Formats: sequence, structure tokens, C-alpha cells
Amino acid sequence: MSADEAWEDARNAALLTDLYELTMMQAYHREGLHDTAVFDLFFRKLPPHRSYLLAAGLESVLAYLEGLRFGDQALAYLDSLDRFTTGFLDYLADFRFTGEVRAVPEGTPVFANEPVVEVAAPLPQAQLVETFLLNQVHHQTLMASKGARVVDAAGDAAVVDFGARRMHGVDASLKAARAFHIAGAAATSNVLAGQVYGLPVSGTMAHSYIEAHADETAAFEAFAACYPETVLLVDTYDTLAGVRRVADLGRRLGKDFRVRAIRLDSGDLGELARRSRAILDEAGLQQVGIFASGSLDEYAIADLRAAGAPIDGYGVGTHMGVSEDAPYLDSAYKLVEYAGEPRMKLATDKVTLPGRKQVFREADAAGYYCGDVVAGAGEEHAGPPLLETVMRDGRRLPGAAPALADVRARAGRERDRLRPALRAVEAGGAPYPVRVSEDLDRTARELRRSLGG
Amino acid sequence: MSADEAWEDARNAALLTDLYELTMMQAYHREGLHDTAVFDLFFRKLPPHRSYLLAAGLESVLAYLEGLRFGDQALAYLDSLDRFTTGFLDYLADFRFTGEVRAVPEGTPVFANEPVVEVAAPLPQAQLVETFLLNQVHHQTLMASKGARVVDAAGDAAVVDFGARRMHGVDASLKAARAFHIAGAAATSNVLAGQVYGLPVSGTMAHSYIEAHADETAAFEAFAACYPETVLLVDTYDTLAGVRRVADLGRRLGKDFRVRAIRLDSGDLGELARRSRAILDEAGLQQVGIFASGSLDEYAIADLRAAGAPIDGYGVGTHMGVSEDAPYLDSAYKLVEYAGEPRMKLATDKVTLPGRKQVFREADAAGYYCGDVVAGAGEEHAGPPLLETVMRDGRRLPGAAPALADVRARAGRERDRLRPALRAVEAGGAPYPVRVSEDLDRTARELRRSLGG
Repeated sequence: MSADEAWEDARNAALLTDLYELTMMQAYHREGLHDTAVFDLFFRKLPPHRSYLLAAGLESVLAYLEGLRFGDQALAYLDSLDRFTTGFLDYLADFRFTGEVRAVPEGTPVFANEPVVEVAAPLPQAQLVETFLLNQVHHQTLMASKGARVVDAAGDAAVVDFGARRMHGVDASLKAARAFHIAGAAATSNVLAGQVYGLPVSGTMAHSYIEAHADETAAFEAFAACYPETVLLVDTYDTLAGVRRVADLGRRLGKDFRVRAIRLDSGDLGELARRSRAILDEAGLQQVGIFASGSLDEYAIADLRAAGAPIDGYGVGTHMGVSEDAPYLDSAYKLVEYAGEPRMKLATDKVTLPGRKQVFREADAAGYYCGDVVAGAGEEHAGPPLLETVMRDGRRLPGAAPALADVRARAGRERDRLRPALRAVEAGGAPYPVRVSEDLDRTARELRRSLGG
Repeated sequence: MSADEAWEDARNAALLTDLYELTMMQAYHREGLHDTAVFDLFFRKLPPHRSYLLAAGLESVLAYLEGLRFGDQALAYLDSLDRFTTGFLDYLADFRFTGEVRAVPEGTPVFANEPVVEVAAPLPQAQLVETFLLNQVHHQTLMASKGARVVDAAGDAAVVDFGARRMHGVDASLKAARAFHIAGAAATSNVLAGQVYGLPVSGTMAHSYIEAHADETAAFEAFAACYPETVLLVDTYDTLAGVRRVADLGRRLGKDFRVRAIRLDSGDLGELARRSRAILDEAGLQQVGIFASGSLDEYAIADLRAAGAPIDGYGVGTHMGVSEDAPYLDSAYKLVEYAGEPRMKLATDKVTLPGRKQVFREADAAGYYCGDVVAGAGEEHAGPPLLETVMRDGRRLPGAAPALADVRARAGRERDRLRPALRAVEAGGAPYPVRVSEDLDRTARELRRSLGG
């Protein structure tokens, strides 16, 4: 099963676009504007509480571009809108994406105003794909960036994605689970994400299981009989009484007791973890871990760790799943070149940098990244270039389909090269230095002057 | 094309669940716990800035429950996890949802701790569906509730959903467009949502269209030639210069000039709208409207209207599309009865009310709703009951598939019966009164005592 069958469908993906992309396409088609356009997908600025973003979503972009077709149902629907000519609908019937894509690999830290994906294609093609590319790269980068913060806050403790029930729809729950995996999460509770992306899946038990039994002890016994190495949820009625029942079960079962952990899901998690640890230790159950969940995020986890709470793993749901402290990014997809000429927009606070680009990332003697240069595509600067060509003539290049394990490994490796201050829960200190090269700055100033800005 | 083909798929929908639902199911199956369980889906409390929620998502729930099957790929994947017995997988292969659903109709205002959906089914069935039901009802209610605020803030001006590019994935963009339509939005830019749900679609032009032309005037002329009644985007270079170019075009084309509006997308929208209005009026273009977009939400729109900005329509994207000021709701799906016996959870701050329920909503002499009673299912109270039976034996009842137009009409009608203070942008004043009936309160206290709480 491919990563896309979970929702994507050749009949409809082409219509996942804003209407204006299609009306502009028709106008371009009518005017004969089929020259190569270059668009940059980038983030204008980082939201509060983020010192870097972790790029994700390219895989979805490439799969979409390769499969992009207008099927009969899509064409019939567009025809019904009375906005499109037969000539244009015929053009759509034969539509294929034939362009080139350069991109920063998934799992790479990126900063404001650095191109993350660059599309170079005949203008109507490059225009059409704007909405879908933004929708996917925005959401997946948002989630990978939030996930990386939670994983960092948890240190050696495992982070498990529990967010499916409050994420924004089904696609969000799948793509976020994948993004959290890239960011270093240990597992997800989302079974479909497990199937689609081959992620480790994990889960414990719910309060309803306990409540469906005559009492808590009966529920613990029955669940442990079915799943000897399970995690038992102890806070349905009285948390510490629940922990004592687990300890009693341990005494009764002796060496047949293989329960792996208890789960705390409400109350003062730090205090309850300390008291639970004491109860378990006193019963000789040092091997039973403590797993915590309930309104957790990187801030709460950092506080628990700072207080020395004996917690071995965290189930993190809503706050990570909707990126609660920054539920969107200031993403943009902007025309930077048409027919070989640089282009830019001057609208207040939304000025773009013209032309094709490259980003160079320099490291210091200790191996930490110390500064990026956003430059014109032909320039040479210190440090390796970030943007790689991943698609040509509408086909993904060999090597542009890294295994998810490699993306995750890259994310870990690359984040280890960010100075610790950039990965801190409380953002502060100097932002990571990103400068525009002198040549690119000059091109921008000249173009701005010629446009009257 | 049905509302569900956009993403749902009989091969995978059953796996869109948390792993623990399946492990609990297997334990229930093994223990023979197949009696009827009743679960309530409700919101524990309203987030800041919300005085009511607008229920949505039931349509997705009913379509899912009717189609729920474990296909061969799903079963093969579950088998590969080495957690499930052949006997349980055989049970899943024949799985059908056979339960009953009672629910508040979509488009109904709801408050904290009122059941919105009640599922009564054999315990394993009712458990399995938790994740999907929460995922959809949570997201769609979140979006309808936010959309209603934006629509109310805009008064007579049209609200158009521009959010697809920054919503959390594809499913989010589709379901939110539908939820905003229920809440009274005039149109969406999302073409696929238009196709799937039959929504009005709308769109203007992007900066890239302007930039792809030699100059702004050439772009305006070309676009207006293609779409005479279009909306022209004026802020690509210098906003007021752009408006003057539209006015010039109007003078040149005379009565052939049919441009419907200009769009402002950056800068001080109120000030620019006033100055644009003056330029257009001076050119005799009183009929040309002003459409505004760019980081808008109900707060910004209320400020613009309070300042008398001459704006005729609003394109609202990200802030509405991610419900920026409240990106999640405190939703819950809790066991309230098993095998005919009431159940409840006592965990700190998360106490539930036991048993099957009904909600009664009373109106005052002026027709405004003035208070709800959450009662046991057998009780009678003043006002009409909100929960209706919509599914029995796993089949949707006749009449439980209202047309979307009727859902939208209901939402408008029902919101008009909320006192204006509840619909104000700045929430304040007394919350809407919701009380638990004396009988239900007594049942809860007795059960709590018996559980040692």
C-alpha cells in the first residue's frame, strides 16, 4: 500500500486547489503564457517559540506531481461551473506536470526566507500546484517542527503520538504521525499511519475498559492475562489506590507478573509519579515503568523533567497534534522568475527575493551550523548547498525517494548540529544567522527600483 | 460522487483508530464482554473566546459507521503486528457496526457537558469507533464554531473561505469548507470541496498573475478580458497606484467595464479601503466593491467594521482555517452505561455523568434560548429534546440525512435564537445556563459513592 492511497485519489487530487489557480491557468493558456515560471515555497518568518523549522512534506509533493491528472469527473465538474472553455478543458484532459523541482531534503532544519521547495515549470503548471504544495509542506513542517521540540524536551524518555482524536481530520492524523516519526517520536497510536508508513504502533488501555469491569482489580487481571507485557491505566477512580492494586497484582503473580508500566493520565503528574514510584519500588517492582499522558507538550514535559519526576515515557496528544502554541506557519509560494527574468512582489511586509536560489550552510570548528547564506543559484559560498534537484521533466530522480528511516536519521543528525540554544524549549538568545548574499541583494534592489518600489 | 470518496476508503477507514481500541476489543472479545455499551461524545468545557459551539460532523460519522469493514489488507496488517489471534481476526473479518446512534443534528448550538453524539452498541463495536468519531466531530465542530464567529463579525458582508493552503492537510480543508458553509460562509476557494459538497466556489487572482505580465495594467486588462466580472488584486506593487490603474481601466472601457471588485491583501486594510473607495468613487465606479483579505479573523473584521471601513467582502484564510485562537476543543467520548448499569469515571477534573441522557432546551417569551437541562433519558423537562435517534441496527434512519442546505438553514435559525451576547466577538457576561437535572445528579452522586469517590 503506497503512502498516498490513504486519501489521495487520481480522480480528485487535481481539484484540491484554490479556484483562482484554475482561472489564472485558463488566462495564461488563453494568453499563451507557457514559458517557464519559477516559484519558491518558503516560510516568511518563524512563529513565536520556534528557533528553527524541520522541513517535511516533500514526499507527498513528489507523489502528487507525478500522479497529477484531471479525470472525467473532475473535468465534468469544472465544465459545470460555466467558467471554463472547451479548449481549456481539453488542455486539462491532457495535463501532465512536466517541470523540475529542487528542494531541501525532508528532515533538514530550515529558517525564515529560505526556499524549501522550488518549482520550475510552464507557468500554468507551476501555478496550479500552489495550493496542494502549501497545504502539505506547511502542515508536515509544522508538525515535524513541533514534534522535534517535544522529543527534545523528553530527553531519553520515549514520546508516543496519541493525537489522532483531536487532530484536524484524517489526513492530518496520518501526515502528523509520519512527521513526528521523522522528528524522533518512538511510536504512534494511529494504526492506519502504522500501516501506511510502516511506523511502530503502540497503545495501552482506556478508562472505558476499567469501567466495563466489576472493579479495577478485575480489569487489571483480565488485561494482563490477555497482554502480559501491557501498560495498566491507574487513574480511573483513585490513582494511588490503582497503583496499589497493580502492586498487589505483582505480589500475587510473582514472576508471572510481566506488566511493563503503569499510565498516569490526570492530576499532578509529577507528584503522582513520585508517589507511584515509591509504591512500586516498595513492592519490588522496580522494573515497572511510569508512562504519563494528559495535556502534555514540551513545556509540561520540561517542567516534569526539571522537577525530577520519575517518568519513563510520554503519550503526547492534542498539544503536539495541533501545534497548539503555533498552529500555523507563515508559509508562501511566490513567483521569483518568469521567462528567464527575475520577478518580485513589493506588497507591504511581503517582499520576495527574485530569481533561482541556493542556500549554503556553514559549520564552525565544533561541527555546529553557524550561519546560512541565501544566494543566487549560480553563486558559490562556503558550506554545502541545501537545495537538491529531486524531479526533472515531471519524474522523480533516482535517489529522490529516501527511505523514511533515512529521513528520520537525517533529522536526528542535522538537529544535533544545531547549537543547544536553538533546540531549547524556551526560545531565546540570538536567532540563527541567515543572510542574503551581496549579489542577490543587489539583484533585488535593482529589480525593486525598476518596479518603482 | 459521495461526500466520502474524497478520502475515505473501505480498505482503510477501519484502521483509522488508536491501537488500544483494537487491543481492548480483543480483550472484550476474549472475555465475552459483548453487552451493550453506551458512550457519550461531548465537550468538557468551552475554550476561551467561545460562548457556544456549533455541532458538526455527524454526517461523516454515520457514513463511516455504515461502511465500516476490515478488508483483506487491513487484516493482513493487523496479523503482522503479532498482537492479535486468528480467532479475533476472523471476528474482525465479519465485523459490522450494528448499534444505535442518537445525536444532536448538525448545525445545532451546543454547550459544555452536553452529549452531542451517543453510541449504544456491543462494547467492542462502540469502543472501536471512538477515535474516528472524535477526530471528525471534534474538527468539524471546531471549524463550524469558528466560522460562525467570523460570519457574525462580518455582518452583511460575505465571508469566503480561503484557508486550504494552511489547513492541516487535505481532509481538514474539505471538512472545514463544509463546516464554514454550515456556519454561513458565502463560498469557498477550495474546488474539491465545491465538487464533493456542492458548495459555491469563488476566487480572484494571485500576485503571480500580475508579476507574470509586463506591468500591472497589462495584467488587469488581460484578466478582465478573460473574466469581465472579475475581482482585481491591487497590492502587488503599490496599492493605491493599483487602484488608480483599475480606475483608468474603467474610464477607458466605459460601459464595457464590468469588474466586480478590487482586492486588498496587505497593509492597513481599513485605511486602504477608505482611500481606494474614494479613488473608485471619483472615477464613477461606485458599483465596484472592495474585497479584503490577509491575516483576517473575527477580531480584525470587527475592528474594520467598527472603524467604518468600506469593505464589501472578506476572504478569510489561516486564522479561521486552523481556529487560531482555539485550535482544539476539550472533546471526550466516555462510557456511561454497560450492560444496563450506569458507569462513570472519577479521575481528577474529568468526572463524567452516568447513563443515557437527553438535553432539553427552553426558550423565553421572546424566542431566545434561555437554558438547557441535561437529564436522564427517561425524564421530561420543559423545551424540546435535542438528541434524536439517527441510526438503528447500524443503518441510518430515514430523515437522518438532511440536505446540506437544510443544515445550513438550521444553523442560521438556531443561532438567531441565541442572545446577541453569546454571539459577540468578545465573549463576556454570564455563560449560557446548563444544569444537570436533580434525578441525574442523584444517580451520579449515588454511583460515585458506590465507587468510593
